Amino acid sequence: MPSIYVTCRVKYLIMSNKEGRTEIQDLGEFGLIKSLQERYGATLATTIKGIGDDAAVIEKNDEEYFLISTDTLTEGIHFDLTYVPLKHLGYKAVAVNVSDIAAMNGKAEHITVSLALSNRFSLEAIHELYLGMHLACQAYGIDLVGGDTVSSRSGLMISITAVGSVKKENVVYRSGAKKNDLICITGDLGGAYTGLQVLEREKQVFMANPEMQPELEGKDYIVQRQLKPEARIDIVKELEALQIKPTSMIDISDGLGSELLHLCQASGLGAEIYEEKIPMDECTFETANEMSLSPITCILNGGEDYELLFTVDQSDFEKLRNHPSISVIGYMQDVTLGVNLVSRGGTSIAVKAQGFRHF
Amino acid sequence: MPSIYVTCRVKYLIMSNKEGRTEIQDLGEFGLIKSLQERYGATLATTIKGIGDDAAVIEKNDEEYFLISTDTLTEGIHFDLTYVPLKHLGYKAVAVNVSDIAAMNGKAEHITVSLALSNRFSLEAIHELYLGMHLACQAYGIDLVGGDTVSSRSGLMISITAVGSVKKENVVYRSGAKKNDLICITGDLGGAYTGLQVLEREKQVFMANPEMQPELEGKDYIVQRQLKPEARIDIVKELEALQIKPTSMIDISDGLGSELLHLCQASGLGAEIYEEKIPMDECTFETANEMSLSPITCILNGGEDYELLFTVDQSDFEKLRNHPSISVIGYMQDVTLGVNLVSRGGTSIAVKAQGFRHF
Repeated sequence: MPSIYVTCRVKYLIMSNKEGRTEIQDLGEFGLIKSLQERYGATLATTIKGIGDDAAVIEKNDEEYFLISTDTLTEGIHFDLTYVPLKHLGYKAVAVNVSDIAAMNGKAEHITVSLALSNRFSLEAIHELYLGMHLACQAYGIDLVGGDTVSSRSGLMISITAVGSVKKENVVYRSGAKKNDLICITGDLGGAYTGLQVLEREKQVFMANPEMQPELEGKDYIVQRQLKPEARIDIVKELEALQIKPTSMIDISDGLGSELLHLCQASGLGAEIYEEKIPMDECTFETANEMSLSPITCILNGGEDYELLFTVDQSDFEKLRNHPSISVIGYMQDVTLGVNLVSRGGTSIAVKAQGFRHF
Repeated sequence: MPSIYVTCRVKYLIMSNKEGRTEIQDLGEFGLIKSLQERYGATLATTIKGIGDDAAVIEKNDEEYFLISTDTLTEGIHFDLTYVPLKHLGYKAVAVNVSDIAAMNGKAEHITVSLALSNRFSLEAIHELYLGMHLACQAYGIDLVGGDTVSSRSGLMISITAVGSVKKENVVYRSGAKKNDLICITGDLGGAYTGLQVLEREKQVFMANPEMQPELEGKDYIVQRQLKPEARIDIVKELEALQIKPTSMIDISDGLGSELLHLCQASGLGAEIYEEKIPMDECTFETANEMSLSPITCILNGGEDYELLFTVDQSDFEKLRNHPSISVIGYMQDVTLGVNLVSRGGTSIAVKAQGFRHF
């Protein structure tokens, strides 16, 4: 049986092949996805948009598209169970997927949940996790319709696929921004990242002396931002009520810097944003200073805020100028002008892709 | 900040709580899913069927339903990279999801792929995996439309979500079987399981002496059944052409025994099946004997054949009696008569749930 024999031998060769080996960590998530994207194009007429945006877009009916998005969280990489309660983790795992659907200007309606877990976890622990997922489903009006629970050799992995809908005329891609469009963000940034730094610091204290209680006094806001982020489906609804359709949109999961670069790259444009226009909560700002972190670096490179970054036509400015949760932070410009941050001191700095990298 | 503080403390308690702890392995996959199913019902009008069948069924348009299914494969539990080539693994990961959609009498159209992998894997290895997934996409007419690639601390995990469509009048659930309906299976059973036993045996030989080449002479068929199973979408198409709508259906991923029990439980019926009617390939039969395995045990308890088990009304018998890939193996009966296998010797044996358990 030459075929199987050869295949097996080839496989041994692959696994032991040291030459021509490209390390995953050299590419980062973005590079890997892009490299695969180049190879596999969509072939079905029902595939409106495949890989390359926050969610895939597929044909549903005359009025609507289906949106599909998948996000995976792995223990030791995306979360640390020393300080992340399982209920919060469940909530967050759902919220980050809902956020991807929101970034297409759509509404998530159904999720499936894949869990891989080691026998370290009891049924009670898994129910705690499901309780959090269920709370998120209630909060976002979603049905949990299926999934898979399998064993793993170590740790916990949660992979959620969210399916949602969007009216065809309302779907928003990363690629639709036009020159001079206004760049907007929701909420404030940097909170989830500084919250993570505080939790990590308290973990070190706890590990050095398990009798010590975590010192989280006054850090409620940023710890909450880290442990229980919310998807901004409220903004999707409000934009529709205001009759504003963003020209492009993405959710801020990996820091403002890399998300802005994604938007610019997809739209073939540059951008100018202003440090003084980017909102940061007082707690975030103070904690960053307290921990000797640059606040603007927390905003540009810190991940997991799950706010929305979007662009609108200048004619929509009046409609949202007084919106309490939306800030205009800059504008899109010709690609030759680059993607820049104008600091409080007036210096223009090129924005680089240094977002949250898990590899 | 009492809320976070309390939550963190509660979490420490959960993780260290030894009393009231239910071990996952005591429940098995079925028990765990069922226990969660009892807690979370569907709330949206667009959810036609949530947890509890091969795929979830949601509203799509006037003519069709949308089907969603998720399956996860983890290294060391579902596959062993010592003898599973990555390309085959990629193919199989897609096929098992397509099989779930086929079991609803539908056709898979799109998949998303979540990979969690350690830095043991190079980009070349991951491309090999994607190559296999892509081959399966081509074979089944599917677009790969999205996914997520994340780092894991150890090993490889593949979670695929398949979405598909089915005409509303064609959707088939596990629960629709009627008394006296004929029980049918596609293809032959036990091959994937005996193939796995052969590969495991050769692995032991290889590990004892790496100079030895695997002895797989004459085992092509069963090794292929294990390494590269196919989803029976051909049968779904043929049944439609024959104008046969199964009354109930499930795919055989965990052995005929447990799948038949699922069908009976969902339909509130018992069943009588006949050992002599269940097709087994000669290679499967000989290998089972060679390895001192009972052939019928391989059929009932061995997993991963991914054939379809379905029931039809007796009036459809003439239409499929001569079908080369479909065998009638018994009939549904009153629940009080139980679920039984009639052996070649004429003895009736109660079928027990001993399917492939990964926990």
